Amino acid sequence: MSGRLITLEGGEGAGKSTAMATIRAVLAEAGIDPVCTREPGGTALGEAIRALLLDARQAGMAAETELLLMFASRAQLVREVVRPALARGQWVLSDRFTDASFAYQGGGRGVDTGCIAELERWAVGLKPDLTLLLDVDVEQGLARMRGRGEPDRIESEAVEFFQRVRSAYRRRAEAEPERVRLVDASRPEAEVQAALRAELVRFLRECGR
Amino acid sequence: MSGRLITLEGGEGAGKSTAMATIRAVLAEAGIDPVCTREPGGTALGEAIRALLLDARQAGMAAETELLLMFASRAQLVREVVRPALARGQWVLSDRFTDASFAYQGGGRGVDTGCIAELERWAVGLKPDLTLLLDVDVEQGLARMRGRGEPDRIESEAVEFFQRVRSAYRRRAEAEPERVRLVDASRPEAEVQAALRAELVRFLRECGR
Repeated sequence: MSGRLITLEGGEGAGKSTAMATIRAVLAEAGIDPVCTREPGGTALGEAIRALLLDARQAGMAAETELLLMFASRAQLVREVVRPALARGQWVLSDRFTDASFAYQGGGRGVDTGCIAELERWAVGLKPDLTLLLDVDVEQGLARMRGRGEPDRIESEAVEFFQRVRSAYRRRAEAEPERVRLVDASRPEAEVQAALRAELVRFLRECGR
Repeated sequence: MSGRLITLEGGEGAGKSTAMATIRAVLAEAGIDPVCTREPGGTALGEAIRALLLDARQAGMAAETELLLMFASRAQLVREVVRPALARGQWVLSDRFTDASFAYQGGGRGVDTGCIAELERWAVGLKPDLTLLLDVDVEQGLARMRGRGEPDRIESEAVEFFQRVRSAYRRRAEAEPERVRLVDASRPEAEVQAALRAELVRFLRECGR
């Protein structure tokens, strides 16, 4: 029985934490106990890189630097966690993965997507089997996010930045509709979780689970 | 009067610290007060990345991760320090730069040099005007390095690693003999410094200084 890589994507305030719990519950019902991780981070080194990336004092970080740090964390995660787990036949569930670089650094910062694709090929070398994308109106997402304490470096960006992130995420779903399943996360929570569950059940069925 | 980027390269125990002082003295004689920096590092963010790179506890760092962290630091240095200085007409002197990635990650770790060249093009976008390469026999260099305290993560590599680094450095000089000037650093210190001085004076003359 071979493992699968499932990733969860979405902008600020899209409801990823709740969605992670739902995904784990659905997988558990199918007898699957996935390795759960997050990006950036997921390894000791990756978490140290994450701290640099989110540090609000690093306001002068160049877009290229940000992209390279994201991929440094991801290259380590793939080699230390994802590939070994898949090789053991385990499933992996990651809170964000390469699609986030296409959205945040590509869409948000305007970094050439050809470079991102090249880094994906060389430094990552694998794609998720299923990506669940929580799509929510930017203003609605940011409103949900407020009151969560001090925003980190990326959360401090302007609304236009998050609009570009959302558009880039949506383009990912349009370009690869089979892999990237867009879930409308602007609806009431119960409906969102039901939609997530339906996507996941469909995928599990395709995997023979 | 336009600025120039001069870089100093070399393996462990090649005598870079002494050479940096000599280069600064020769530049000072020509009325040039360069911005001095180092890699990895040279910016607040770069120094934090340097700490991760050299941390002996990060023994499981993948070669790809190492390369991406090196270029993350370099991308920031170029945008925050090197380009602004050159734009002001200032000279820049850096203790290591992109050639070190070709030597350490390319030669030492066996990372594809095509990827390194691609990162150089995209994340750095400039080459040194002059690179002084201190070339020393690996055993001789390592002997000089001993007694300097605990080795960092990269200094802890095996002799074969440093032999591959040296070979890769020498190939850089062979491929670009005009830019990369190899200085035989196995000779007595006074001779090494005289050779460095001669290379630098020749370069300054070409620059009309």
